[in-house]
Amino acid sequence: MKTVLLTGGNGFIGRHAVARLREEGFDVHLVTHRKPADPDIPDGVQVHYCDLFDFSQQRSLVSRIRPSHLVHFAWCTANGLFWTSRENLRWVQASVALLKHFAEFGGRRTVFAGSCAEYDGSFGYCSEEITPTASRSLYGTCKNALQQIFTRYCRQEKISGGWGRIFFLYGPYETKSRLIPSVITALLDDKPARCTRGTQIRDFLHVEDAASAFCAFLTSEVEEVVNIASGRPVSIKEVVELIADKIGRRDLIELGAVPISEAEPPMLFADTKRLAQEIGWQPKYDLSRGLDHAIEWWKGRVKLESSLAPRVAPFDAPGPLS
Amino acid sequence: MKTVLLTGGNGFIGRHAVARLREEGFDVHLVTHRKPADPDIPDGVQVHYCDLFDFSQQRSLVSRIRPSHLVHFAWCTANGLFWTSRENLRWVQASVALLKHFAEFGGRRTVFAGSCAEYDGSFGYCSEEITPTASRSLYGTCKNALQQIFTRYCRQEKISGGWGRIFFLYGPYETKSRLIPSVITALLDDKPARCTRGTQIRDFLHVEDAASAFCAFLTSEVEEVVNIASGRPVSIKEVVELIADKIGRRDLIELGAVPISEAEPPMLFADTKRLAQEIGWQPKYDLSRGLDHAIEWWKGRVKLESSLAPRVAPFDAPGPLS
Repeated sequence: MKTVLLTGGNGFIGRHAVARLREEGFDVHLVTHRKPADPDIPDGVQVHYCDLFDFSQQRSLVSRIRPSHLVHFAWCTANGLFWTSRENLRWVQASVALLKHFAEFGGRRTVFAGSCAEYDGSFGYCSEEITPTASRSLYGTCKNALQQIFTRYCRQEKISGGWGRIFFLYGPYETKSRLIPSVITALLDDKPARCTRGTQIRDFLHVEDAASAFCAFLTSEVEEVVNIASGRPVSIKEVVELIADKIGRRDLIELGAVPISEAEPPMLFADTKRLAQEIGWQPKYDLSRGLDHAIEWWKGRVKLESSLAPRVAPFDAPGPLS
Repeated sequence: MKTVLLTGGNGFIGRHAVARLREEGFDVHLVTHRKPADPDIPDGVQVHYCDLFDFSQQRSLVSRIRPSHLVHFAWCTANGLFWTSRENLRWVQASVALLKHFAEFGGRRTVFAGSCAEYDGSFGYCSEEITPTASRSLYGTCKNALQQIFTRYCRQEKISGGWGRIFFLYGPYETKSRLIPSVITALLDDKPARCTRGTQIRDFLHVEDAASAFCAFLTSEVEEVVNIASGRPVSIKEVVELIADKIGRRDLIELGAVPISEAEPPMLFADTKRLAQEIGWQPKYDLSRGLDHAIEWWKGRVKLESSLAPRVAPFDAPGPLS
């Protein structure tokens, strides 16, 4: 029996990954500090409440489950704040502990979540092989420092380890203040969407695809860094206008209303050769179908919320990237 | 009053640093897990017993001392073993905790000990500015990953932080199985010193000089990475023959008796411009005077030990470097 321990299983990607891991035949053990866990966790998934920052609690959990596989998504993610949060240091400590405990109790294959923020953003096109890493944020620095320890330790201890660098995701359960949900919910609410000029080139992937890519990565034997992304460059302007056209409210889009932060690289998208050729994975959604799906999901949410209380949609410009 | 917390104060460099820090007018707090502490700790130094791997114990110590300065030498150092030891992961965790606690309780200036093993050894000449880092060992990888977190966190939290990359040290209290002590003690014992061909180029610094360089680094305002080294390339063969000539036993030197490990880079020495020009520090010992000093110290030791029990001097080839 393949037993997978999944951290961050209640999070943005993790919640989509649970079902995929079940479909792949894994005995899924989800670790969370939130009580109660999300109600839509599929049957048969075992939920464990554990404070990953308490290393002896963590070790005891790993010793009981003895997972053959480990997927580690958990990290601090509070929108806008995570770039500089001191929690990043604690996540380095907790993740190092997790890796060590996984090895100690016979773990064989693991995939950890990294980030495009690890790359030196000034290179624009991000290849795992050649693009230098040099983050300007504490978040990206901590992720990349952990990646180096992770890769070296896996190699030394003969654990098969993959590191998935996640680019820009969107879809159900995304934090509402981020770019795509904030534009969708503003327009659904008949409010203006104040945006930057939108010239930044990015790489967007639907979160269900990201979860499925991680699952394919885990069941493959591919090691070290792999970009988890669409590999399709698109401007923020194109994304925003596509959303507006789908909702039929291009009149509410205000491009140029917000300045582009100097911290934002003009271009950031992924070389996806390793993902496509070595792992052999392809996304299910293209951007247009993915946005349709996201808009439908947010329609349900907006309806639900407006039946509860009046709401003013906050709008944040996309956060700094590295 | 300047208050410095010193970890590894009983170690190879740390024990030499204590007196220098006192001379610089610091109120010195030495943290150690060894009981009793070394008897030659100068008067006026406060010794604290603390397990740095116990973060709440560590935090409580820092909260009581509230050091304005921090020097962090402690790490796993068991000769030959530290390159791959899992303790490296625990030292990353403990060092991250120390940095966080230091910031939390008002720390202003800190220097951490790094290593030449952080560099990609194939470049040979190591400049802080341009030489890529890419270690092949868990030790070097962990040190360098910590350095990245350290530098970013110090910058973000407005702590003045320096990172001293130590090259090859020798002198009193060096582990006897390492190159220089093993040659000295073999010759003093009338035993052959079986060596490699000795073509490797290295950078040696007397440990008292290293301690004094760290002290100058701490009292300067220089930030980020600085090489702690002599900047004088010398071959292992030259070092070994210099020792032999000083002891008058060149006949006992067997160059080429041991193969050079493939892990050893042919050349590894430091660009010391930052140390010399920005910190304004110069070594007290050149290699010849430094070796005189080391030989005298080992003579005292060998005499002391032979009065206790017969001894066969083990000889290790110099360990792998990265």
